[in-house]
Amino acid sequence: MGTTEVDTRERIVAATSALFMQQGYSATGLKAIAKAGRATTGSLYHFFPGGKAELAAATLRHSGRGYEELVMSVIDGAPDVVTGLRACFAAAADLLRATDYVDACPIATVALEVASSDEPLRQVIDEVFRSWLDAAARRLAADGVPEERAQELAIVFVAALEGGFLLSRVARDASAMESVGRAVVAAVEDALAEARRGS
Amino acid sequence: MGTTEVDTRERIVAATSALFMQQGYSATGLKAIAKAGRATTGSLYHFFPGGKAELAAATLRHSGRGYEELVMSVIDGAPDVVTGLRACFAAAADLLRATDYVDACPIATVALEVASSDEPLRQVIDEVFRSWLDAAARRLAADGVPEERAQELAIVFVAALEGGFLLSRVARDASAMESVGRAVVAAVEDALAEARRGS
Repeated sequence: MGTTEVDTRERIVAATSALFMQQGYSATGLKAIAKAGRATTGSLYHFFPGGKAELAAATLRHSGRGYEELVMSVIDGAPDVVTGLRACFAAAADLLRATDYVDACPIATVALEVASSDEPLRQVIDEVFRSWLDAAARRLAADGVPEERAQELAIVFVAALEGGFLLSRVARDASAMESVGRAVVAAVEDALAEARRGS
Repeated sequence: MGTTEVDTRERIVAATSALFMQQGYSATGLKAIAKAGRATTGSLYHFFPGGKAELAAATLRHSGRGYEELVMSVIDGAPDVVTGLRACFAAAADLLRATDYVDACPIATVALEVASSDEPLRQVIDEVFRSWLDAAARRLAADGVPEERAQELAIVFVAALEGGFLLSRVARDASAMESVGRAVVAAVEDALAEARRGS
């Protein structure tokens, strides 16, 4: 693909991701995607011959990877995982406020819409979440949380982030995100203290 | 309204709630609702002259109230709030398994779809969540969690439940619900122990 083709494809995927975040999968038609991505419907089918299903899968993989990199870069940029998690929830709360409560998880809305009604897309999202959970568990383990506990806390972290986005977006108030952040940080601190006592 | 009218209205609302849970708001059209509720499109407009928007608001209020009653009856049926919360997460995990991971929160999918795109529905859902949070906070306070901490833990509880539903449905595995349940129970136990030490 030439540079222009790459640009067009990226614009289409970015537009799709933004529309998914704003209104979900079912409400997002190819015409709206083409318009937002400054592309023709023809070029959508050029890049994604399978239409909306193929474009959605590519978008969820792309934004899932991007979101994982973003979250992990915040956590890894901190001196330790507790400080990193604190920064992560603070950044999520700030982003919600700064974007009028639109900019949240790029996966969750579509995930709930398709979990019981579109098996191929559910599988794509399952892979995305597994990758997030693995990355978070590895990071927790690297800081001294025992393996099994790290896996459980990774689930608690991602679930809290998702629940925090849901409650904050609906309330148009990011304090829910701050509340769940404090709970996750406390749980990780407990696990680390317990591990230190045990060793 | 006569008995038959009440029955028809209830059937329509129940069908709408089930479809929202299975596929969300945007994917659910009036035709599908009429079919699932064994009603005519005409009778849908008879009960809900405002069409889908009015029906959705009534459904979210109805299922929000029903879900609050269900959750609180599980918690209140236990000897103390910790045992009650444990039973609540276990029941949620069992229900997910028993219903092929469809039967989850009746509000969350629609909440994420409309939070940034349908202000009247967002406000309805905001009221539903506020009512859940108030009920949970009151219950925690009744068992001895200090007021402010009870409000924070209520947020953590609802967010964890929602995040647990999301991860469990996508993974088709209820162990995420069990993990977040353990974390919430531990946080409440900590708060109670702290309150006892403080008093």
